[in-house]
Amino acid sequence: MTLLRLDPDRALPADPSLRPLARRLYKTTCDLPLICMHGHVDVATLAEDRPFANPAELLVMPDHYVTRMLASQGVGLDQLGLTRRDGRPRHDGGAVETDPRAVWRLFCNGWRLFRGTPSRYWLEQELVEILGVDLRPSAETADEIYDAIAAKLAEADFQPRRLLDRFRIELLATTDSASCDLADHHRLRSEGFGDRVVPTFRPDALVHLTTSDWVNQVRRLGASADIETDSYDGYLDALRRQRETFVAAGALASDHGHLAVDTTLLPHATAAAIFRDARAGKVDVASANAFAGHMLHVMAEMSCDDGLVMQVHPGVLRDYDSDVHRTFGSDNGFDIPVAIEFTRALRPVLDRFGHDPRLRLVLFTVDESTYSRELAPLAGAYPAVKLGAPWWYLDSPDGMRRFRELVTETAGFYNTSGFVDDTRAFLSIPARHDLARRIDAGYLARLVAEHRLEEDEAVETAIDLAYRIPLDSYRRPHVPLEP
Amino acid sequence: MTLLRLDPDRALPADPSLRPLARRLYKTTCDLPLICMHGHVDVATLAEDRPFANPAELLVMPDHYVTRMLASQGVGLDQLGLTRRDGRPRHDGGAVETDPRAVWRLFCNGWRLFRGTPSRYWLEQELVEILGVDLRPSAETADEIYDAIAAKLAEADFQPRRLLDRFRIELLATTDSASCDLADHHRLRSEGFGDRVVPTFRPDALVHLTTSDWVNQVRRLGASADIETDSYDGYLDALRRQRETFVAAGALASDHGHLAVDTTLLPHATAAAIFRDARAGKVDVASANAFAGHMLHVMAEMSCDDGLVMQVHPGVLRDYDSDVHRTFGSDNGFDIPVAIEFTRALRPVLDRFGHDPRLRLVLFTVDESTYSRELAPLAGAYPAVKLGAPWWYLDSPDGMRRFRELVTETAGFYNTSGFVDDTRAFLSIPARHDLARRIDAGYLARLVAEHRLEEDEAVETAIDLAYRIPLDSYRRPHVPLEP
Amino acid sequence: MTLLRLDPDRALPADPSLRPLARRLYKTTCDLPLICMHGHVDVATLAEDRPFANPAELLVMPDHYVTRMLASQGVGLDQLGLTRRDGRPRHDGGAVETDPRAVWRLFCNGWRLFRGTPSRYWLEQELVEILGVDLRPSAETADEIYDAIAAKLAEADFQPRRLLDRFRIELLATTDSASCDLADHHRLRSEGFGDRVVPTFRPDALVHLTTSDWVNQVRRLGASADIETDSYDGYLDALRRQRETFVAAGALASDHGHLAVDTTLLPHATAAAIFRDARAGKVDVASANAFAGHMLHVMAEMSCDDGLVMQVHPGVLRDYDSDVHRTFGSDNGFDIPVAIEFTRALRPVLDRFGHDPRLRLVLFTVDESTYSRELAPLAGAYPAVKLGAPWWYLDSPDGMRRFRELVTETAGFYNTSGFVDDTRAFLSIPARHDLARRIDAGYLARLVAEHRLEEDEAVETAIDLAYRIPLDSYRRPHVPLEP
Repeated sequence: MTLLRLDPDRALPADPSLRPLARRLYKTTCDLPLICMHGHVDVATLAEDRPFANPAELLVMPDHYVTRMLASQGVGLDQLGLTRRDGRPRHDGGAVETDPRAVWRLFCNGWRLFRGTPSRYWLEQELVEILGVDLRPSAETADEIYDAIAAKLAEADFQPRRLLDRFRIELLATTDSASCDLADHHRLRSEGFGDRVVPTFRPDALVHLTTSDWVNQVRRLGASADIETDSYDGYLDALRRQRETFVAAGALASDHGHLAVDTTLLPHATAAAIFRDARAGKVDVASANAFAGHMLHVMAEMSCDDGLVMQVHPGVLRDYDSDVHRTFGSDNGFDIPVAIEFTRALRPVLDRFGHDPRLRLVLFTVDESTYSRELAPLAGAYPAVKLGAPWWYLDSPDGMRRFRELVTETAGFYNTSGFVDDTRAFLSIPARHDLARRIDAGYLARLVAEHRLEEDEAVETAIDLAYRIPLDSYRRPHVPLEP
Repeated sequence: MTLLRLDPDRALPADPSLRPLARRLYKTTCDLPLICMHGHVDVATLAEDRPFANPAELLVMPDHYVTRMLASQGVGLDQLGLTRRDGRPRHDGGAVETDPRAVWRLFCNGWRLFRGTPSRYWLEQELVEILGVDLRPSAETADEIYDAIAAKLAEADFQPRRLLDRFRIELLATTDSASCDLADHHRLRSEGFGDRVVPTFRPDALVHLTTSDWVNQVRRLGASADIETDSYDGYLDALRRQRETFVAAGALASDHGHLAVDTTLLPHATAAAIFRDARAGKVDVASANAFAGHMLHVMAEMSCDDGLVMQVHPGVLRDYDSDVHRTFGSDNGFDIPVAIEFTRALRPVLDRFGHDPRLRLVLFTVDESTYSRELAPLAGAYPAVKLGAPWWYLDSPDGMRRFRELVTETAGFYNTSGFVDDTRAFLSIPARHDLARRIDAGYLARLVAEHRLEEDEAVETAIDLAYRIPLDSYRRPHVPLEP
Repeated sequence: MTLLRLDPDRALPADPSLRPLARRLYKTTCDLPLICMHGHVDVATLAEDRPFANPAELLVMPDHYVTRMLASQGVGLDQLGLTRRDGRPRHDGGAVETDPRAVWRLFCNGWRLFRGTPSRYWLEQELVEILGVDLRPSAETADEIYDAIAAKLAEADFQPRRLLDRFRIELLATTDSASCDLADHHRLRSEGFGDRVVPTFRPDALVHLTTSDWVNQVRRLGASADIETDSYDGYLDALRRQRETFVAAGALASDHGHLAVDTTLLPHATAAAIFRDARAGKVDVASANAFAGHMLHVMAEMSCDDGLVMQVHPGVLRDYDSDVHRTFGSDNGFDIPVAIEFTRALRPVLDRFGHDPRLRLVLFTVDESTYSRELAPLAGAYPAVKLGAPWWYLDSPDGMRRFRELVTETAGFYNTSGFVDDTRAFLSIPARHDLARRIDAGYLARLVAEHRLEEDEAVETAIDLAYRIPLDSYRRPHVPLEP
């Protein structure tokens, strides 16, 4: 049985002319509070503040990075305990796995699959730093580690709200369906967490007309906003009202997942007609796409009014695998990127609001070819545009390094958004922020060592990237840091 | 005259914090047998086992990496001794060069053109290690080197089968036209090489309807399979039969060169009608493309039945230069890549067989933008998909390093296929494998030095990448390595 | 107040195993003359040889890299003194800034925005080496630096022609409208600068039919060439005549900015008809695009006759921001790249002239995904093609490093064009060339340290890249360098 260790210099550059410098820079940011402007932690976790159930439900099942990798080697999602919606037997004839220890064993047995991945990096830090595990996961050690974690989870210190303190999370934005009633957020606010845990307005299910649940979602929107949504005008009014409700609940941003980022505005009558057709269940794909692009533009208009920062996450074919989607539902790791175009697609919105101080557009991509070609030039020219942190498949050591290398020379540091952890795995938040700070320290160290930046500037930039820039990007006022 | 030297640390990272570590890792793999799952060595070379003719025919003329680079600086392919099919005089009015020494002089004179290229790297190793040359090629040294090599080639040790041992090639897959009779492979098998040299089923000439030779190829297929191929059904039967013949001859894989990787299945009647039109010489480009995509899907079906691993090599405009193609034929270095799309194109096959243990799809690309955007996410999710090694223009020191950096964080190591040497130049095989092992050692050393991986894990991974993974990817059983 | 310093090792690799080697290589090129084959310095600057007006007009206002970055943080272009064409008041209600000191203060105040950008790198070198400034720009130091520079600019040594000597510029090519009369160039020639400052033929305004000024430009062409341009044939004759005039004035090259690089030749009658329609003001976008592609092919034909090297700069959506374009005119940093395709688009011209020694095509890109996918394979195969240096957003330390890493392994060094400074900022020329030489030294040092190249070869290559290759690429005869 091999020991699990965390080296204090992990993810810093190995080059001896860079490492001591990177270490000094990292030391200036490692203890700063965490600003989590975009994540997918379920708000109920914090509202209910219940202890975590067991190691598998904490670390394996909700993390599609982990389940996807195991699936890629032939482990069935049902073997990992993911709920089937169809009641069919497992592919090997058995029942869906309900024993969390069995799920945990599969995970530990597959530990070598994660070599070189950020999941491995995050999990290692979670196991050692948060859970006190010092054994490398394997078939042999699975049970011992399971028991150790289970014991930890029973401690009072491990309730979610306590972890919020322990993790030094100053601000956590969750992602919330635009049609929801924000009950959990209201509860958190009433219990004193209103400035610390805020919602994010996500209207995807309301603007993509061909999603199966659309009619129902529009009805829910109407109910939440208390506005009739049978007509396009009512739908717009309800969206506006619901945005106000989110703002009142502390929301700083909206979040938009689109396949493309077309922002062509349709004539009002055309949009209304497409809406009507969709209500009647007879919308075609082209009209649905045009409507989605139109609504992205409309959301920019609304943002100019209510100040919500727009986050755009495009370029991913969601629910790519028909069978996985049908059987297990969305967000199971089978969303696959496609090439994406920003320059032409964003022109309608940028031509209207690109210099408007009321609009703030944070652009994310999983297509790295757009970093230097489109996103850095746009963020480096338009005050309304910020370049979002490396997202999803790219929030990894080398992915984040490439991001800085590909965008900084055109966009600088101050047109980027700051780090976004984008995780469903609550325990991974500190490791993700810590890793980003290490990678930025390494990049800045190189600039200093190559005499392209002075060390005092690098220190200021490192702190800005870790703390001030994310707050500024999302227009959250902040008090000056202690020196 | 300058000496040619091979440094034992070549292609390992220069960084002093990485090199000793990389050297240790490389030492664990450098003597492992070579697994050559995809190459273009002419099987006749081994079946006939004749000595190589001369330095030019060995190192220059069959290597389109070399002839292309010389051509890019204005050297005519006819000056390099490549056979013209049109009988026209050379562009400078002379006859096609027939003196191999003259070809060799042109090559040595152009030595500086290869600076920084993998050809330079491979050739240097071939010259020093295999051919005992210790002079740097140049106009001045050309003749001396020519004579030294010519003398070596006359030695009995230089016959191809002897080199198979000397190179420690455990398994060599050639690429063979799907319609061929495998006579050379049968001969090799009867002479005890059946487990060591195996064919690969390449049906390109049979599925691309607009290639000039298609009708003839389909007739050859019929003759080889002894099945009437006038109808689409007969054609499918003959393909199936011929695949069985390949499997019986030891084939582990099929190989598919397509411009796009569309895998949309056509209705049987539609496919049959296009086939009929093609037989009548009246197929249009759109139908031919649809048929090629359809056949890729059909091949996946057949693979599920007979177990051949599908290798897909898309995204290259073959025979780009009309004049070179007309004059010298295919495969002369004038195939130029284009952007390629995998995500949408592969969906039809992945939706049916992506989780099916019978299918194995190895995907190659020369469009690096697809590494992190499409291929790593697909290979990191689907058990049926393996990400092929950097191919063609990209099997170079920096190309292979970028590959690991761009794919590992999403796909890990165990969803990649292992190294593929993809060469027509028999003598370059050891250098190519050696280089891949050095680059992997350098990449793994960085992970260890950055404390993202422990050294014992890196050792295991290095050995897996060099030996176990290529065998596993192509489902070749292997015995455990000695420790 | 912090001191501004220039480290002698700046932009060389930090790795201790590379830096001493890189320093040695850099030392062999740092004093070589500058060959400036493509730039945008206004020829009037040199023809009139007037002193520079003030720090803002010298360093801020003509440099869209600088104004763009300030604009990205909400500084209005009118606040930076850029002339409005519409007479509207400033966005904050004031008048367009006319005080250069106020502009300078905005620039100094925004100094931190440039961290990590090449602008910062170039400006630092200009301030220290050319202008003798040793204070870091900031709100506090702005006035002191302004005064110091203003005093320098008044010295006789700072007149443009004196700087030509001081900068060791051996050859400077300006960019000139194809319809212009070359009066400034004639004056320079008559005053002994004819071999040193040469024009470049830029016909963009004449071949893009939908630009607002097209009809007028064609008329100017006719006037300059003294040929009637009412008909397509007259237009072609005038272009030919005007090219001859440029060649007589020393021009070595033409320059072509196109959105795409389609080179499909139209039938003569079709082209003539589109030309006629354009004259009548009724051309559509598709016809205009077809005409632009046709004219790129026609220009290749003309190049075969008169020897002008064709430079192609595609893939940028010019004047992307409607309001900035309307208000301030072109070239204000709001040109945004789009994805570009070379392989298919260039086939018509390469099929005719790809092996023709009369044609020389230098291809530039701002889409890095094309480096290894299309441009290196094309440049590595066709004698007519050279791969242009990293352009615009990419002529930066990491951008130039990536260029070498992505293209050398396929195209080698000798199929690249040599460095192009592409600047409007006269004072930045030495810093830009110096930076390119440092980056090439660093790249070559790595090849040597990884034993992929011998040091004597690296020295020769470094000198070739800095001096011989740019001259050869543009077919300028050169005498051998002193050893």
